[in-house]
Amino acid sequence: MQSKFCYINKIQPMGISGGKLKMQQRGLVTIPTDLDAVKETLDVYKRLGADAIRDCDGTEFPDELKNIGAKIYATYYTTRKDNQWAKANLDERQQCYIVTKFTLATSNELSIPLMTGLSPDLLEVNDHDDIKRWWEVIDRSTGDLVAADKWQYEAKTKSVIITDCKLYHEYSVSFLAYLIWDPVHMYNAVVNSWQNVEHQIPFDVRQPKTHAFTLERLRNYLEKHPYVQVVRFTTFFHLFTLVFDELRREKYVDWYGYSFSVSPYILEKFEQKVGYKFRAEYIVDQGYYNNQYRVPSKQYLDFMAFQREEVAALMKEMTDIVHSYGKEAMMFLGDHFIGCEPFMPQFQTAGVDAVVGSVGNGSTLRLISDIPGLKYTEGRFLPYFFPDSFYLGSDPVKEAKVNWVTARRAILRKPIDRIGYGGYIKLAYEHPDFIDYIADVCEEFRELSANVKNCTPFTFKRVAVLNSWGKMRAWGCHMVHHAIYHDKNYGYAGVIEALAGAPFDVNFISFNDILADPNLLKSIDLVINVGDADTAHTGGKIWETPEIGAILREFVANGGAFIGIGEPTAHQYQGRYFQLGSVLGVEEETGLTLNYDKYNQTVLSEHFILEDQLKELDFGRGKLDIFAYPDTKILAMQAKSVQLAVNEYGHGRSVYISSLPYSFANNRLLYRAILWACQAENDLHKWFSTNYNVEVHAYVENGKYCVVNNTYEPQSTTVYRGDGSKFELELAANEIKWYNL
Amino acid sequence: MQSKFCYINKIQPMGISGGKLKMQQRGLVTIPTDLDAVKETLDVYKRLGADAIRDCDGTEFPDELKNIGAKIYATYYTTRKDNQWAKANLDERQQCYIVTKFTLATSNELSIPLMTGLSPDLLEVNDHDDIKRWWEVIDRSTGDLVAADKWQYEAKTKSVIITDCKLYHEYSVSFLAYLIWDPVHMYNAVVNSWQNVEHQIPFDVRQPKTHAFTLERLRNYLEKHPYVQVVRFTTFFHLFTLVFDELRREKYVDWYGYSFSVSPYILEKFEQKVGYKFRAEYIVDQGYYNNQYRVPSKQYLDFMAFQREEVAALMKEMTDIVHSYGKEAMMFLGDHFIGCEPFMPQFQTAGVDAVVGSVGNGSTLRLISDIPGLKYTEGRFLPYFFPDSFYLGSDPVKEAKVNWVTARRAILRKPIDRIGYGGYIKLAYEHPDFIDYIADVCEEFRELSANVKNCTPFTFKRVAVLNSWGKMRAWGCHMVHHAIYHDKNYGYAGVIEALAGAPFDVNFISFNDILADPNLLKSIDLVINVGDADTAHTGGKIWETPEIGAILREFVANGGAFIGIGEPTAHQYQGRYFQLGSVLGVEEETGLTLNYDKYNQTVLSEHFILEDQLKELDFGRGKLDIFAYPDTKILAMQAKSVQLAVNEYGHGRSVYISSLPYSFANNRLLYRAILWACQAENDLHKWFSTNYNVEVHAYVENGKYCVVNNTYEPQSTTVYRGDGSKFELELAANEIKWYNL
Repeated sequence: MQSKFCYINKIQPMGISGGKLKMQQRGLVTIPTDLDAVKETLDVYKRLGADAIRDCDGTEFPDELKNIGAKIYATYYTTRKDNQWAKANLDERQQCYIVTKFTLATSNELSIPLMTGLSPDLLEVNDHDDIKRWWEVIDRSTGDLVAADKWQYEAKTKSVIITDCKLYHEYSVSFLAYLIWDPVHMYNAVVNSWQNVEHQIPFDVRQPKTHAFTLERLRNYLEKHPYVQVVRFTTFFHLFTLVFDELRREKYVDWYGYSFSVSPYILEKFEQKVGYKFRAEYIVDQGYYNNQYRVPSKQYLDFMAFQREEVAALMKEMTDIVHSYGKEAMMFLGDHFIGCEPFMPQFQTAGVDAVVGSVGNGSTLRLISDIPGLKYTEGRFLPYFFPDSFYLGSDPVKEAKVNWVTARRAILRKPIDRIGYGGYIKLAYEHPDFIDYIADVCEEFRELSANVKNCTPFTFKRVAVLNSWGKMRAWGCHMVHHAIYHDKNYGYAGVIEALAGAPFDVNFISFNDILADPNLLKSIDLVINVGDADTAHTGGKIWETPEIGAILREFVANGGAFIGIGEPTAHQYQGRYFQLGSVLGVEEETGLTLNYDKYNQTVLSEHFILEDQLKELDFGRGKLDIFAYPDTKILAMQAKSVQLAVNEYGHGRSVYISSLPYSFANNRLLYRAILWACQAENDLHKWFSTNYNVEVHAYVENGKYCVVNNTYEPQSTTVYRGDGSKFELELAANEIKWYNL
Repeated sequence: MQSKFCYINKIQPMGISGGKLKMQQRGLVTIPTDLDAVKETLDVYKRLGADAIRDCDGTEFPDELKNIGAKIYATYYTTRKDNQWAKANLDERQQCYIVTKFTLATSNELSIPLMTGLSPDLLEVNDHDDIKRWWEVIDRSTGDLVAADKWQYEAKTKSVIITDCKLYHEYSVSFLAYLIWDPVHMYNAVVNSWQNVEHQIPFDVRQPKTHAFTLERLRNYLEKHPYVQVVRFTTFFHLFTLVFDELRREKYVDWYGYSFSVSPYILEKFEQKVGYKFRAEYIVDQGYYNNQYRVPSKQYLDFMAFQREEVAALMKEMTDIVHSYGKEAMMFLGDHFIGCEPFMPQFQTAGVDAVVGSVGNGSTLRLISDIPGLKYTEGRFLPYFFPDSFYLGSDPVKEAKVNWVTARRAILRKPIDRIGYGGYIKLAYEHPDFIDYIADVCEEFRELSANVKNCTPFTFKRVAVLNSWGKMRAWGCHMVHHAIYHDKNYGYAGVIEALAGAPFDVNFISFNDILADPNLLKSIDLVINVGDADTAHTGGKIWETPEIGAILREFVANGGAFIGIGEPTAHQYQGRYFQLGSVLGVEEETGLTLNYDKYNQTVLSEHFILEDQLKELDFGRGKLDIFAYPDTKILAMQAKSVQLAVNEYGHGRSVYISSLPYSFANNRLLYRAILWACQAENDLHKWFSTNYNVEVHAYVENGKYCVVNNTYEPQSTTVYRGDGSKFELELAANEIKWYNL
């Protein structure tokens, strides 16, 4: 080593034999296989330095690969792939709640067909259970329940007939339906135009007969698959909400939805547990199905907690069986994960050894890598080896590169333990440049892992994202599902994505967390509230609980930092729309304050937060109606509306940002906003790159730091070390450089 | 006459001597004068064919003009211009309610200075009356009243000291203040930089001593001004809300605000009338002061009704005195008009003979001309003869032309009876081209009046604008004050402006009107709801009253028409944001429905409503998040958000428009939308111009119709008569052509 801060070339990573020698390193990588791809698997296994092999959905594990020394994963389905059982136990098929369209009564009698707008391939009305107990007919013009003797179900037309309707009121029926085709199987069949495929019927593992059957089925499976070392559960029991319409198109999807986790059997248990009567409306929620934008009701929070407990207990039964065979239980985080939310305490009791999930970006990486209490986590990288990415003339390398570089920011903050790929290996094998590229990725990952291992990266501040969900939806707030965002929320998801790779200790806390422990914020430097008004992301009606506002005002007034993005804390109440308007120094003009003159329109051209912004600021959709109070400092406006502003409040500081779509420039803007709000401007030149396309991460305990180019072009920058000393650096496209401290 | 539909040249208007002979016609015109402008007045009087002369604020009436045969108006102030009285009766100065800024309690004791942010020239804290009875200290974090024994007023610091505060709650003080300078006088003094002017102190004519004094003062005035024929009251007693800050800048203005109409004396009367205790919060309203965007509370509606009754009774005392002297009582609609709302029934009892008001555009014209029950109405046209419009090099002709052409559309629908001008006549006299132009205007007005007189113009449909205010704010909804709009609402005010000159029978109705008389809509063809969510313009919480939705759904389902603009009917309740979403076929994405797939994205390129739109549609600010239900027909989208859509609902139709800034193209769009929604497409080619810059108005009872060019350029068009026959026409800039039927 030539100096304290000497550059470690890739050829000298920690404890691994030197030289940029491809294929000299092994481990930490999983690849897929298939019966007809033994040769290809073996070759890729070697080239990637893999140490584990998995089957995939629809593939089988070849005998030839069972004894090559690789760890073997097998995909296991708890809830489907046994139609014989399903058909013999139709009463234990999975169920869901559905609410019909709100339908106008133009006479005293109204007939509401239940299946309008719903795929008959997916759902079948459950009139087997007591419909008067489990269904609800609601006058949606009043919100009142219609008495049970005022409606009846007509099986022939699959309609509910309501009598004594109030004229020109709208009515809805909430009913139970059986899932007669597993929605994921249906989705794959529809998307891939599978013909004549038998619909896999999902059964409910939590019901008595199927419960017993399922445990036995798992034992049988384990007996018959002695070579399998890791049982990879395709999550466990309950799919998120996924409804298709009559044209088999997706109609409603909620990656966090619980409406497919119901059945009278379960709901009776719920009633016993909570001590009050269940209502379909707790699930149906006016047709919003408690999606992640809805401020959750107490009953829904109760229901989720109940489900998580029940699911975890049943998971434990299954993982115990897996362990009794000397194997590991791995959970795929994606499909049937309702009740298995990995950041919630119940999950810790479920006996899961490892979690694997698809990595779409930094946020989805952290969704996996942040899970506590596991032996290891694993990220499945994109592209999957599927025909949509691998065909003659396709460029899977590009997709892989974007995926890797995007996720790498987050890996450098909180690494997953392993990486891997999925799909049909023969498809990928036809793209040798792709195999070469991912071989490089595997090597880079192993180097990174070695450098970062067992070390908390240097973090500046403790940041808490505050919303109604807290850690239940850590990293996934504003996400539709895996790395997919709606335009409307892209500028909010961008904040979470920026945080995924930023040198802060990021926590997700809920309003209820604060109420339960008023000291919680003592361990936090900065609170972020990001989202639209009257959603679970900003809190909605919770702001009518005065303790919430008081705790946060106290926090900031006493020196804390607050960043609000979008319509933070917005809920119309007691003369304010932004409930922390006095903290933020801005308010939204909803019309109610048009009569007040707004004189503060001056935009400051210079501020610590703006110092690295070389181009025009990009707030995406932004907001149109934000105005500043007299003492607030405005840093950006567009169309007369504040986009960026800072305020001092007591001993603390706040920053308002209209919206922050993810980009490296905005990433830097947020970084500086956090430092400024935390009154830590002096920390700027620590582990810092003047060029915002480049980031610096330090692993002090391991005596390492790295400089990473997040772009696909070469970059020049000045790098500041932790002691403020600096040096100039050129980086190749995507390059990561490691240094010793 | 050569044919049934022959062109009447301007030289042959009804019953007035022929030939385009300037100065051959007289009447219907009022001009201002001043002591030093006798010669100029006489000349302008002749050139304009005026028949009335008025003094203006600050001018005196010259003796030389008292006997020239002109009707003489005199401006009269009820509430100021007698500081001797005001100073001798300080307890009867006018008062207002003010609420302080919401102030944070960081310890158990909190001091809130009352005058922060307020002009000490305007206001003086009233601690003369019982502050524990009339003031309120409110914990704004809970909305709770602070007990009277927990706070005290410290006169020395003009502060309220609150004890036993809850930490980090925000508190406000609502207090009574005396108006120590009439805000209009103050405004004029500040704007015109008047030096050393004695502040005119407004006194409260409704209090006992000042009441008696005022009636006597009026009698004295009338005795001393026998030449005056019309006493022009500068409205009557209560100014709208107008607060200035410490820098004498406007801080808060509400043309409709009642917060300057209070005093303990009045409020005790109010309590006796309504039978419940008054609270300052009824006026202060969380700091929103019940501005026109706020959905009014029952108590505020009660208070306004009480004030209107009391004010009308006192007006009647004064108009009786005026009449007893054989003179007319005229009201200026503008300043102290609180309680005198001319469309409300109480006004009809007040004995007012005539109303005069400033005309800024079509809406403000109708605000005057639609007032029922008067002998005559008069419009004061712009520009006022003030130095801001009349100086060396200024172009007052342009301003006058825009004003006249803009207002003329509305005059042709519902004419005022007279027109006039105000200000310093000497200033105007220095611009002979201006005098020439307004002489033409006067002549055109007289011709128009003759043709239109006593005749209801041909109207197609009965249109009702539905909001929380109804006729109380007819034509003025969305207006800040006279023809002034906020950007945020320009696209809503544009709808009202378009209606002001459109051939529909336009009504303004409130939700309470509908509840009080469910048959009201039987006399209506089309209901318009225009404005932002949760404002008085769209109704807010009223939609939780199920009758409202039911009545409107019934109306449309049975063949009625509905047009919603902006966020019509929007209030989050029972699964909908747009409460009439099913009628409109569109909904706003607030986040809560992001999980639903939206497949209806097809924009129809052809539709009846769009047929005259030659250029790109202009929805101004529009809305960003409107989506269509499956059966809705989308006519325009931008940024994936619906801007214009049509829907069929039962036997009726609806149209959604995102926003509609005023333009001739949008005027036409609204016209067609109304015809389409009313299923009256076949009426299109009646009294119609193919060129939307030109309009046709028919006065069937009078056997007349006119074609009017609303632009400042020549126009060609095809004119359709009422029987569908048509002819081509060229019009000069601004030209109006009259025809016999």
